[in-house]
Amino acid sequence: MYDRLKGFRDFYPEEMAARRQVVDTLEDAAARYGFREISTPALERTQMYVDKSGEEIVEELYAFEDKGGREVALTPELTPTVARMVVAKQQALSKPIKWYSTRPFWRFEQVQQGRFREFYQTNVDIFGSSAPEADAEVLAFAADALTDLGLTGEDFEFRVSHRDILGGLLETFAADVDTRAAIRAVDKRAKVEETEYLGLLSDAGLSYAQAEEFDDLIATGDLDEIAAVGDDDVAAAVANLQNVLAAAEDFGAREFCDVSLTTARGLDYYTGVVFECFDSTGEISRSVFGGGRYDDLIESFGGQPTPAVGVAPGLAPLSLLCQRAGVWPDEALATDYYVLTVGDTRDVASRIARDLRAAGNVVEVDVSDRSFGAQIGYADGINAETVVIVGEQDLANGEVTVKAMDSGEQTTAPVDAFPGEHPSPTYDDFA
Amino acid sequence: MYDRLKGFRDFYPEEMAARRQVVDTLEDAAARYGFREISTPALERTQMYVDKSGEEIVEELYAFEDKGGREVALTPELTPTVARMVVAKQQALSKPIKWYSTRPFWRFEQVQQGRFREFYQTNVDIFGSSAPEADAEVLAFAADALTDLGLTGEDFEFRVSHRDILGGLLETFAADVDTRAAIRAVDKRAKVEETEYLGLLSDAGLSYAQAEEFDDLIATGDLDEIAAVGDDDVAAAVANLQNVLAAAEDFGAREFCDVSLTTARGLDYYTGVVFECFDSTGEISRSVFGGGRYDDLIESFGGQPTPAVGVAPGLAPLSLLCQRAGVWPDEALATDYYVLTVGDTRDVASRIARDLRAAGNVVEVDVSDRSFGAQIGYADGINAETVVIVGEQDLANGEVTVKAMDSGEQTTAPVDAFPGEHPSPTYDDFA
Repeated sequence: MYDRLKGFRDFYPEEMAARRQVVDTLEDAAARYGFREISTPALERTQMYVDKSGEEIVEELYAFEDKGGREVALTPELTPTVARMVVAKQQALSKPIKWYSTRPFWRFEQVQQGRFREFYQTNVDIFGSSAPEADAEVLAFAADALTDLGLTGEDFEFRVSHRDILGGLLETFAADVDTRAAIRAVDKRAKVEETEYLGLLSDAGLSYAQAEEFDDLIATGDLDEIAAVGDDDVAAAVANLQNVLAAAEDFGAREFCDVSLTTARGLDYYTGVVFECFDSTGEISRSVFGGGRYDDLIESFGGQPTPAVGVAPGLAPLSLLCQRAGVWPDEALATDYYVLTVGDTRDVASRIARDLRAAGNVVEVDVSDRSFGAQIGYADGINAETVVIVGEQDLANGEVTVKAMDSGEQTTAPVDAFPGEHPSPTYDDFA
Repeated sequence: MYDRLKGFRDFYPEEMAARRQVVDTLEDAAARYGFREISTPALERTQMYVDKSGEEIVEELYAFEDKGGREVALTPELTPTVARMVVAKQQALSKPIKWYSTRPFWRFEQVQQGRFREFYQTNVDIFGSSAPEADAEVLAFAADALTDLGLTGEDFEFRVSHRDILGGLLETFAADVDTRAAIRAVDKRAKVEETEYLGLLSDAGLSYAQAEEFDDLIATGDLDEIAAVGDDDVAAAVANLQNVLAAAEDFGAREFCDVSLTTARGLDYYTGVVFECFDSTGEISRSVFGGGRYDDLIESFGGQPTPAVGVAPGLAPLSLLCQRAGVWPDEALATDYYVLTVGDTRDVASRIARDLRAAGNVVEVDVSDRSFGAQIGYADGINAETVVIVGEQDLANGEVTVKAMDSGEQTTAPVDAFPGEHPSPTYDDFA
């Protein structure tokens, strides 16, 4: 007997049915906004990740040398791959480029609740627009996807921030601040003690007094005051954030957004609006997923300057949120019909099964040469709604028996009229 | 600029739309038969493949040592993984177990037409039934999937064989024959010169005369004669094949099946009925996909003896078949609506877009602050069927303009009644 690798998961049908429903909901929401599905390789050159995230990223990668001597890695995220794809066909692709895809990614990291070494994300990105409507459309997609799952504003909130507000304010306070280090400090604000946090800001170049003043300011989230305190860059970033929120209002997503300048996203490559989705009840303390604007990445990958904004809900944290809110789909099989054979009736039973399938129904038949009782037990196990019993005696009378499995009631129907004009005939149609 | 790895592919939206349609067709066909979706890891322990296929398989694998010191490999096929999953929950799973999944697999091999290092398959398997109906249901699924794609009996055929007929006949001719080697020789019959083929049979333990006689017999495909010549095992295998074909007749798949005993499938693990799908026109000389019965695998993985039968259509060879037959889906974007804004109308345009999306339509709006002409050009590029023009002047009159993009005709509609009661309003609804 072989064992599964740690951090990897087998999904059996019941659990998979729920996951499929959630992924379909996310993808349907993306598709309705005109995002288009793409499909991407599981392996890329390791160098791509090193260039984007630094040499230390290799420790988190499933990286190895392939049999052709190439240094390759299992993709830990989608963004570098889509950036490569945009650059490869930059001239041919009409803008805005709106893509989505759902697939696994891999990181060699500590396994914990909601975090695995193989994990699934639905990535949704817009390339080629710097307009606030692009940021707002990403927020609106995310809001639609979550409400389509049955979540409400009681369940989740988008904490929206702006890297250039933080960056601009920091530079207003201290011209020689290490902006990236300071923003990484902000990202850690909720996770560390206040003294450690202020110490990190101090390491980044703020005086202790500046750090406190800076933190007071971003904690208020008062955009007008921030615009007044900051320089022109800060005022422009505040205006951009306000424009995104106004577009989000028109797009139906504003009600889910809270301005939260202490939300910074850890990744260095964000450039404008950033946001994180949180459980409103606070039961799940970590961010459920996040996204934002990354206008510099395509150029850094050798392409023409191309603004970009995206979001990537992960299925594992999303399942925690849905389960907390009680809207995770039932982990159960669903079957429309089991067509049961008694005696030598396979030809008629098969005709009925084929007709029912042609109408789009899920239909199982006996493929194990089983008794009546064993077939009924199996039909019950797969949650068949209706069992159609095709018995030799019934057939001699030109009939089949139609049994509703929830009530146990059954009736007969003329075999020639089954399913006949009923695409999905039930007990009630013949009772 | 980074390059893609050789043998790996990026699928952009147009091509992906066609692939998604084909995968959905395969999966819908499987689901209608009551196959249930599962999801499985991309990495497994290398040893699993070595045990199943021998040490030489490692040359074809993307195998490496992970950061925890485990010898792991990117999965080159699904079967060992599902066997592991069946064994892991053997007691809890009710039989028959009917699973499907679509995902990529990886093999380090020479890249050629229709063959890649990363390739997609839809695996469909039944565990726990040795009845001929199980083999026939797998054939029926495959036939339904192909006809649902628009293929007909003019386009494809299933060449059906039986490993025990071949094995039994070989033992009838020469008791000490190396059956596996001889069956591998049969698998190469169409690919090598006759003398080489007969030489391989000879190496396996047949005399030259026996090899010729054996080959004549399997080439005729005359099951009655074969049953007469062979021993009881051969007669039982012939009866099993005939029972599978009879069930396939009831299940609607017999018309696509040709008995072809020279079809052997290269893999050693098959045990009963095997089959390969071929292009009926012969334009594609290789097998499109194949499947068959493998009753010994679960036991060899440490489980209780569990019969199994399955099939695994690959998307790349299937696309060759569909393209040859002219039924590969259009590689084009499809968009129901583009809602175009002229002037300061984003609030109304957004309301209309949201209403149309709520009815399930694919709807794009301007996210790039573009001119009328640029928006119309973009709408044309995404093949929008209908453009809804929300202009300041029209709105002053309480109207929007509805433009059919194929004809270019346009008319006005009351903004308050758009979309109103029409889930998918068109030019014709308001003309």
